[in-house]
Amino acid sequence: MASQVIPAIVNGAGGKMGREVVKAIASSPDLKLVAAVDRNPDYIGRDVGEIAGCGPLEIPILNDLEGSLGMAVQEKELGVMVDFTHPSSVYDNVRSAIAYGIRPVVGTTGLSPQQIQELAEFADKASTGCLIIPNFSIGMVLLQQAAISASKYFDHVEIIELHHNQKADAPSGTAIKTAEMLAELGKPYNPPSVEESEKLTGARGALAGEGIRIHSVRLPGLIAHQEVIFGAPGQIYTLRHDTSDRACYMPGVLLAIRKVTELKTLVYGLEKIL
Amino acid sequence: MASQVIPAIVNGAGGKMGREVVKAIASSPDLKLVAAVDRNPDYIGRDVGEIAGCGPLEIPILNDLEGSLGMAVQEKELGVMVDFTHPSSVYDNVRSAIAYGIRPVVGTTGLSPQQIQELAEFADKASTGCLIIPNFSIGMVLLQQAAISASKYFDHVEIIELHHNQKADAPSGTAIKTAEMLAELGKPYNPPSVEESEKLTGARGALAGEGIRIHSVRLPGLIAHQEVIFGAPGQIYTLRHDTSDRACYMPGVLLAIRKVTELKTLVYGLEKIL
Amino acid sequence: MASQVIPAIVNGAGGKMGREVVKAIASSPDLKLVAAVDRNPDYIGRDVGEIAGCGPLEIPILNDLEGSLGMAVQEKELGVMVDFTHPSSVYDNVRSAIAYGIRPVVGTTGLSPQQIQELAEFADKASTGCLIIPNFSIGMVLLQQAAISASKYFDHVEIIELHHNQKADAPSGTAIKTAEMLAELGKPYNPPSVEESEKLTGARGALAGEGIRIHSVRLPGLIAHQEVIFGAPGQIYTLRHDTSDRACYMPGVLLAIRKVTELKTLVYGLEKIL
Amino acid sequence: MASQVIPAIVNGAGGKMGREVVKAIASSPDLKLVAAVDRNPDYIGRDVGEIAGCGPLEIPILNDLEGSLGMAVQEKELGVMVDFTHPSSVYDNVRSAIAYGIRPVVGTTGLSPQQIQELAEFADKASTGCLIIPNFSIGMVLLQQAAISASKYFDHVEIIELHHNQKADAPSGTAIKTAEMLAELGKPYNPPSVEESEKLTGARGALAGEGIRIHSVRLPGLIAHQEVIFGAPGQIYTLRHDTSDRACYMPGVLLAIRKVTELKTLVYGLEKIL
Repeated sequence: MASQVIPAIVNGAGGKMGREVVKAIASSPDLKLVAAVDRNPDYIGRDVGEIAGCGPLEIPILNDLEGSLGMAVQEKELGVMVDFTHPSSVYDNVRSAIAYGIRPVVGTTGLSPQQIQELAEFADKASTGCLIIPNFSIGMVLLQQAAISASKYFDHVEIIELHHNQKADAPSGTAIKTAEMLAELGKPYNPPSVEESEKLTGARGALAGEGIRIHSVRLPGLIAHQEVIFGAPGQIYTLRHDTSDRACYMPGVLLAIRKVTELKTLVYGLEKIL
Repeated sequence: MASQVIPAIVNGAGGKMGREVVKAIASSPDLKLVAAVDRNPDYIGRDVGEIAGCGPLEIPILNDLEGSLGMAVQEKELGVMVDFTHPSSVYDNVRSAIAYGIRPVVGTTGLSPQQIQELAEFADKASTGCLIIPNFSIGMVLLQQAAISASKYFDHVEIIELHHNQKADAPSGTAIKTAEMLAELGKPYNPPSVEESEKLTGARGALAGEGIRIHSVRLPGLIAHQEVIFGAPGQIYTLRHDTSDRACYMPGVLLAIRKVTELKTLVYGLEKIL
Repeated sequence: MASQVIPAIVNGAGGKMGREVVKAIASSPDLKLVAAVDRNPDYIGRDVGEIAGCGPLEIPILNDLEGSLGMAVQEKELGVMVDFTHPSSVYDNVRSAIAYGIRPVVGTTGLSPQQIQELAEFADKASTGCLIIPNFSIGMVLLQQAAISASKYFDHVEIIELHHNQKADAPSGTAIKTAEMLAELGKPYNPPSVEESEKLTGARGALAGEGIRIHSVRLPGLIAHQEVIFGAPGQIYTLRHDTSDRACYMPGVLLAIRKVTELKTLVYGLEKIL
Repeated sequence: MASQVIPAIVNGAGGKMGREVVKAIASSPDLKLVAAVDRNPDYIGRDVGEIAGCGPLEIPILNDLEGSLGMAVQEKELGVMVDFTHPSSVYDNVRSAIAYGIRPVVGTTGLSPQQIQELAEFADKASTGCLIIPNFSIGMVLLQQAAISASKYFDHVEIIELHHNQKADAPSGTAIKTAEMLAELGKPYNPPSVEESEKLTGARGALAGEGIRIHSVRLPGLIAHQEVIFGAPGQIYTLRHDTSDRACYMPGVLLAIRKVTELKTLVYGLEKIL
């Protein structure tokens, strides 16, 4: 299928991510946008290209995913459905797509482990590829993989994540994920060399698994940043990722669209296809 | 006194800071080392230049501060005494120096507020300059002053300090000092725009006065670093100071030696003479 | 005039900066938008609040600056005109505003030194305040002032500026400005301690005045960043400013609007009113 | 050989790196220092532990490598020779060690490609492991490997390296090496999106192969730092390595000592054994 153009349906085309995906597909010669779906009544019937801000594409936004999937099958455009919708609908969307023989690329969060397990079995039976990707940022996945490599040689590591002050929770989910990936390697980090004491509570940050510490900074003017700092006598090795725009996720989305056509099962996580 | 050479006595000449001070004075044409004092029996009688690692200076390390002060008076070398000794002896050292008409530059910590008050009165009566300097790092004082200037225009600020993992306490005294200087301006920082919650306790760091947060990182390979990060919509302004060697304190010590000769009272803090 | 509401006209209200200024004024209780002018025919007659994206303000964008100034005079709203227009029209705009007794705050670039001189004389005769501000970023001005303070104590400094790869020229005007401000202090920087050689031409960056070096990085994903790095034995002192959004200029614009009402002459540069 | 103690000879034991290696071996229970060699007459006959600063080891520094190798053979201590000597002697040292059946770990620079080829053939015939390691910093090798991984997904990259101002050449050898490793992947980097122009020559740094740019900062207070910055729309991914002490090379040296005993050929570069 490598040299063929891949047909793509965007579900949630009117949302912030959906619009970016529409633009990214429209500017990729090896991909072809064949339908756009969104439940928001403000968008229905309007040209998806104009909503996305890339000029008219002569594809109206429809309300009806099943109809769009059926139409694609009829026109023999058995490609990919990209889903950036809502936790409440994503499970059904993915089942429908697989049932029609169209491969899902899922950026919507909120699927439970059990739902993912069920979808994996469903994809398996149908021999249909399916990608569920909680974080489409290739840069962040590269950082996490480089951190795992480094953890074999460094015993000391701390994480600083910095976000705008509209973010209510701390630490960020991505920083927790990085810490979990390092902790899973099954070694304790940061063996103490002195007995530490906090003169002000919280100074040493949050303790994630295996002794890894996370510090969360929240300031207006920040966007989304993560720093993993490894230390050893005489050296510091720092990995840092800065996000400034949703555009950063598009290389990951496009990669997923291209890769899912080669799969026959459900795969979870961008790191699996890098 | 500007064009004259300033005679200097180093008290605590065999210690880590004392040795640096000896080297710094020896390489300053406008200063003249006239005596070196240290209580450590290993050093007494030995050439202070050889102990300091800058080649022989033909000045033996003596045990006796009073004797050295008296000798300097006799030879009409009424200059400066630099004191890097011990909390238990610094008060007496300073009184003695002032009594002999020799101006103290004090880097030794541990003087109580009341002791400082008494020394100030004593210096005042004697019309003798005296400098007590808790931090000789000009770079750090510049950072703190720049932070105070910025605080007039930025309402959001957090501090990250990073030190080697031999440091037991957190936050560092210098970071607390920076936070206090910002808090003294009497305005609250970091007014919340959302209700924050910590998924892992401590993630948001320690709360110093007026809403300022401090995060303390401890890793081997780090030395001594402080970062003050101001944020406002659309911008971040960061001040960072990195210390890698005691040599960084010498410009502050030399400045203090030169300035104390122009003073007739006790002055506290390097920022007062910049 | 402190407790009164300041009437403001925005000239160039439909441009990128103009729209931000409209929003900033609309959300400041001590300021009142009284007119909006733009030559772009697409905008004329439309509500300036809707163009700016802050909801209707019931002020139509007009084509005619003179008319708007006259109207303000008639309604006794002798306040401020903010000008973000074009190099070709800014000189006339400023003269007109002063003639009407309305104080200009000018962000438009392109005024020649001679034009500025003429406008200064004109403002002087009219006893009317006028502010010409090439850079409204308070953070950047704070950085430059902190750099000047540091340059008295540090002899070594280099500048790194980092921008998106759509920026054609290097170094950035702001980095050159920082270097000029440091060079004006009349001391040479970076006295060499060894004879340097470049194995690859350009490695050591551009030589601005007095030995200061500037390095320009251009990458997609960057926005606008400047770092001034001071070095001395054993320490590094770094000042960094990151811009991520035009919003960062608004505190400077609002400050200028408030300050210009207290002035009776032309003043150049944000640093003069901080 | 895993559970046996590895006997080690340090050649160049009195040098800066040699002394660190002596200390590192002395504190590793699975290694045993059996001889120390140095040509410097100041050190000959003195206890190598006292020279290294880790207390007496009862091993005198000898002048004679061949004698020490012969002695080790006689005592059936066929382990490893670590060589931090001089470009003029390293070739002969390595040949001698291999001839005696003792595996060389070579940190000395200056071997020509032809010499390395000859030594590889010699090691091959003798079925004796030999490691030649131009950079023992595991952190730097991890950075370079992470950079290679990132280069598959990022088309834009620049390198900043920062060193103390005693370093005469620019860019640093390690930064050039990083650039070469990225360039070897055979793709051009940094395709221009605008026509760039330098207002000050050198601003855009040095052009290494395939469009990669390197910027070299030289300041007192810096030690040795390298930053590789990848950019893509909406994101920046930065890898940074900071060296503050020779201690940072010891994990690499110890790893090499342990690995070379498992080899039967010459291997070049720390990355091959990570």
